[in-house]
Amino acid sequence: MKPSKLTPSPTGSILTETAVDPRKYGIMIEVQGERLLADLRALAEFGKEGTGVNRLSFTPEDLAARDWLIERMQAAGLVAKIDGVGNVYGRSPSQSRAVLIGSHTDTVPSGGWLDGAMGVMYGLEIARASIEAGADAAVGVDVISFADEESTFCGTLGSRSFVGEVGETEIATAHNLEGLALTDALARAGYADRPHARLDRDRHVAYLEAHIEQGPRLEAAATRIGMVTSIVGIRRMEVIFRGQSDHAGTTPMAMRKDAGAALIRYAGAVLDGFDAVGGPDSVWNFGHVIFEPGAGNVVPREARILIEYRDTTMAIMDRMEAVIRGAATAAHAAGAVAVEARPMMAIAPADMDPALGRLMDGAAAELKASAMYMPSGAGHDAQHLANHVPTAMMFIPSIGGRSHDTAENTEEADIVLGLRVLAATVTKIGNQVRS
Amino acid sequence: MKPSKLTPSPTGSILTETAVDPRKYGIMIEVQGERLLADLRALAEFGKEGTGVNRLSFTPEDLAARDWLIERMQAAGLVAKIDGVGNVYGRSPSQSRAVLIGSHTDTVPSGGWLDGAMGVMYGLEIARASIEAGADAAVGVDVISFADEESTFCGTLGSRSFVGEVGETEIATAHNLEGLALTDALARAGYADRPHARLDRDRHVAYLEAHIEQGPRLEAAATRIGMVTSIVGIRRMEVIFRGQSDHAGTTPMAMRKDAGAALIRYAGAVLDGFDAVGGPDSVWNFGHVIFEPGAGNVVPREARILIEYRDTTMAIMDRMEAVIRGAATAAHAAGAVAVEARPMMAIAPADMDPALGRLMDGAAAELKASAMYMPSGAGHDAQHLANHVPTAMMFIPSIGGRSHDTAENTEEADIVLGLRVLAATVTKIGNQVRS
Repeated sequence: MKPSKLTPSPTGSILTETAVDPRKYGIMIEVQGERLLADLRALAEFGKEGTGVNRLSFTPEDLAARDWLIERMQAAGLVAKIDGVGNVYGRSPSQSRAVLIGSHTDTVPSGGWLDGAMGVMYGLEIARASIEAGADAAVGVDVISFADEESTFCGTLGSRSFVGEVGETEIATAHNLEGLALTDALARAGYADRPHARLDRDRHVAYLEAHIEQGPRLEAAATRIGMVTSIVGIRRMEVIFRGQSDHAGTTPMAMRKDAGAALIRYAGAVLDGFDAVGGPDSVWNFGHVIFEPGAGNVVPREARILIEYRDTTMAIMDRMEAVIRGAATAAHAAGAVAVEARPMMAIAPADMDPALGRLMDGAAAELKASAMYMPSGAGHDAQHLANHVPTAMMFIPSIGGRSHDTAENTEEADIVLGLRVLAATVTKIGNQVRS
Repeated sequence: MKPSKLTPSPTGSILTETAVDPRKYGIMIEVQGERLLADLRALAEFGKEGTGVNRLSFTPEDLAARDWLIERMQAAGLVAKIDGVGNVYGRSPSQSRAVLIGSHTDTVPSGGWLDGAMGVMYGLEIARASIEAGADAAVGVDVISFADEESTFCGTLGSRSFVGEVGETEIATAHNLEGLALTDALARAGYADRPHARLDRDRHVAYLEAHIEQGPRLEAAATRIGMVTSIVGIRRMEVIFRGQSDHAGTTPMAMRKDAGAALIRYAGAVLDGFDAVGGPDSVWNFGHVIFEPGAGNVVPREARILIEYRDTTMAIMDRMEAVIRGAATAAHAAGAVAVEARPMMAIAPADMDPALGRLMDGAAAELKASAMYMPSGAGHDAQHLANHVPTAMMFIPSIGGRSHDTAENTEEADIVLGLRVLAATVTKIGNQVRS
């Protein structure tokens, strides 16, 4: 678990360490932990399910939560609107430049109460405290809740729309699992004809997203703040073995075309290969295997395995893909069973802005919060922002590493500490922009 | 595909090579191939499905076929009855000693027209020809169609009942897949209160069963007659891996309890072990694998594999079981994932009578039929008879090795040749008993 190396930002950051001005901006953003927790608890009532939340995109619960969020933003002094894809966007009214803070308030089925909601409520509390601190800050705080991060209709719809990376066709064809079209869901919500909010490079100096880690690393390291270095890329391949079903008693071993045994040998070779070429942050998973027809006394006619792998660098992902394809070619060449490797998904890794990460690290140090650099093994809205604006992500610990489950939770002290570190990071950004 | 070694019969055969008397019995049994084929085609009308047959135990089609068989037996001169479990048994009326010939007339769903039916029709034709040849033969021919060989209710019910190896409890609790109780099926058929036919050691000098091979060996060897040396034993084990489901992106590899990867490594080790300890006739199959919950981005919580293996000797089966258990113990000891190997089925191998096999070999040679010794990789009624009476099985080729499918077939010339070889074998047995 050594931290990944920081790599240069793909976008030119406006923030560089050499530009750090030792003078302070002066206006400290005095966030209030109890107010944040009250907001989080209020938001968790929308779709409440035991200790968790069931708030799928564009359900009545999700829409009611968006309306509630608009009211909370307006009460904080932001100019707030819901856009044409359901993004809830609140702008700081007094500044022409702003740090954008956000995440998402939709959930998976039977999800947790924090997940994306916490990052949005962090934004709300920091914006509110910033406005309370006075209108003379050079950099305001904008807040956004991106629509449908959890792929109920269309994965990370809101953040990709915000950076202009989702097409009309994709919106026109997206459906949820019940067959409801995204366009119908947006029309019913009353969002369909509204303009789409967009990232404004002249206005937005940085995007910050806080999130629960959704994994066990911070807890295992007894560390309270994670500065995300990169969000992993994800690729998924299905490898299909086509042999012949035969009687498993009367067919001699040498005369079989056994798709199942071919898969077992193949998967073992891929595990060996991944061990050899994987980097320190690489992860992989064989999540699904099926043998057809699936009877004890019938030689499998067909077998399929789903291989997912993630890393923060394209070079390592390419090496892992070469393992998958090379082993498939070798298995196919071996003869009896035809082997095909089929790409199912490919999302590129996204580097966070190193200078922003160092500011966050410094903020944590000032607040005496233990902190470490780490990659994100899960996808987030931040990965789509990162190619367009200097972007940073902060993780706080997940108890037991649990997430996407009603049992998801984080210690209140950690939630509040994360808020304070993020607020201090905003102050540091403000100092740099002013300098 | 070298033939298995002949092993001594577990029962003391009345037939020994040293006892062979060169004098011929005199009465040749003049079987008629066309009459056999006509009977087979008539039987295939019951439950006909395209080129195959759908005649599951105790369905109206199966019961009608049993009634038809009784009539054919009686027309041939046999004393025929259906017993309390549905066995159709025809006795030669003029002799106190008899060779018993049989198999089964029930089928799997969408099965073939030959399968067990052919062995019963061979018996009918040989009994009929024997009676036609004259009543002075020392040894008659009895014919039997054993009930439910195909396990619709209760696997090899008829043959196990015939040798006294099926208990009242087993009959009382057996059901088919639709939930119909075996006792209800027998009552509806009118069989329930009838006596159970039994093997008569004083009467039955041998049991002969002919069957299609259900595999590709004879065809591949361009050989027309197979003398079965042993019927394989079958064992089935389910090996269960219990780990923990985790997010496949955020959980570092070293912190996972990955049931799926543990299964892949385990199954590879078992394949290696089987390659090392398996004999020339060993076969094995991993027919079913399941990963739970089965999602690409979730580390498998549980994984299960079904391992079936067969051999003609207990010693080799024991070595294979030791591979399965040893690898499970090693995988369990490795730590993160709990591994349990659970026996699901264990059927002992059954040796055929070597002296009977040699008589059959001699009969094939006299008829200039190419022949080879071979094991049976599938189970048959003969395996239950073998512990109680000298037993032999004969295979004839399956086109393409196909069986348990409507596409199952055998060349007519091969069907008729098999009949003649079996009839000549009966003559040779008669010669020996007389001598």
